[in-house]
Amino acid sequence: MKTIGVFDSGFGGLTVLRELLALVPDARYVYLGDTARLPYGSKSRETIARYAVSSARFLADQGADLLVIACNTATALALDEIRTAMSIPIVGVVEPGAQACLAAASKSAAGVAGSHVLVLATAATTQSGAYSRTLNALGLRATEKACPLLVPLVEEGWLDQAVHAAVTLEVLRVYLLEALAQAPDANVLLLGCTHYPLLQPLLETTLKNLHHPMRIIDSAEATAREVARLVSGDSQSVADPADRVFYATDSIEKFQRLGSAFLREPLPPVKLIDLGG
Amino acid sequence: MKTIGVFDSGFGGLTVLRELLALVPDARYVYLGDTARLPYGSKSRETIARYAVSSARFLADQGADLLVIACNTATALALDEIRTAMSIPIVGVVEPGAQACLAAASKSAAGVAGSHVLVLATAATTQSGAYSRTLNALGLRATEKACPLLVPLVEEGWLDQAVHAAVTLEVLRVYLLEALAQAPDANVLLLGCTHYPLLQPLLETTLKNLHHPMRIIDSAEATAREVARLVSGDSQSVADPADRVFYATDSIEKFQRLGSAFLREPLPPVKLIDLGG
Repeated sequence: MKTIGVFDSGFGGLTVLRELLALVPDARYVYLGDTARLPYGSKSRETIARYAVSSARFLADQGADLLVIACNTATALALDEIRTAMSIPIVGVVEPGAQACLAAASKSAAGVAGSHVLVLATAATTQSGAYSRTLNALGLRATEKACPLLVPLVEEGWLDQAVHAAVTLEVLRVYLLEALAQAPDANVLLLGCTHYPLLQPLLETTLKNLHHPMRIIDSAEATAREVARLVSGDSQSVADPADRVFYATDSIEKFQRLGSAFLREPLPPVKLIDLGG
Repeated sequence: MKTIGVFDSGFGGLTVLRELLALVPDARYVYLGDTARLPYGSKSRETIARYAVSSARFLADQGADLLVIACNTATALALDEIRTAMSIPIVGVVEPGAQACLAAASKSAAGVAGSHVLVLATAATTQSGAYSRTLNALGLRATEKACPLLVPLVEEGWLDQAVHAAVTLEVLRVYLLEALAQAPDANVLLLGCTHYPLLQPLLETTLKNLHHPMRIIDSAEATAREVARLVSGDSQSVADPADRVFYATDSIEKFQRLGSAFLREPLPPVKLIDLGG
């Protein structure tokens, strides 16, 4: 049975793990949230690469046969550095997310040539231009929009209670109005951060209020499908829930509490690990 | 001429430096923003103490004779650890801020016994209870309110443009309504985070809209007065602007750009320094 390492700066990557557990149940999982050094999305390429490589090494040391970089910022800025530093296969979220956009565009009324992908992501991810390069290479037009307030809003859980959701809806409206002014014909919306799937209901409401329907693509599911392809036929057994281990570099209480919302099931005890810094 | 080290997790501490430059112009300044490891406000005591002590050591190595911890979270959670690790005088922001509340309360119609201080701060600062302990020891009642979204809103500059300020006003309204439900007789508002002075105009608007006038206290000025008292009469010369050096552990371009808004004057080139992590 393969051991799959899943890495994120925090617990956003649990949205990817959720899809992995559904599509690749016959594997052991080791998850690492680098919570002592988050957020990555506002930091420089050099710093992000240093943090991501040390995190990847930790997961390899725990016996990972394959590593999923379940963090858009780390994938966009440090995938090459991680691949250079490691000898195991590495799957990021950018390429699978872009492929999922291509599939959605080819099924849309506009077709691939007429489609325009709007990518919502962190400041670091958009500044890297990784999504635009990857989407353009697939023949898709792309516009990237940095949305730095969305991760704090999700981490604070301002999603459900009416007075809180009203703020998040207003922030989404501001970001989407700014983005659609740049890309008025956008018809595919890519969630370029693993925190954003939790915003999907509010995003759908916002798009409806703006009378601008778009197909919403979440790279988590596409990434899980890519992993399933790589490890297919590897095992017929089903892993025990005990074969899931969770590490964090700080605030394990918060990780435990908020992580369940991302994974949509209770987390086992999270282990605290010191990666320095 | 004394060299004063000023430390914050980011550029919020520049609001303290601004007051220091006005009150103690005859000193050299070395400022460090630990931007590679920010924000501190959502992290654990152990992690914050580790980051703060390594930052304090760096400033002492640069020749600081006195150190100002211009970060409420680092002061609230790690002042004792920093004092234990260092042999130079250390000034935090909590005690001066509490003393400024005492002065305001004693001048208020309610008097000290009738006053109630509402402290707005990060999650880590409020969880430490440092402000409540310090204010209670001065005979003041206190209620602390964690406001985790305020730092991201200030860092994004959602303060001026109408559509952005509307969101920040709504977030302030939500936080203040929640806080005043716990402390309906609060008459003094302490800004328990060095980012918050930039919110003062919007806070005043919010308090007016809520029909709940409060005296707003900013610990930056009180902290600068404490430093002035400690170094008074030390020198009659006026320092050269060249005697101000700025270090950051990441994102010096962002530091340079946003720091000017906090300092209210242009910053000289910011130097990048690696403290590990």
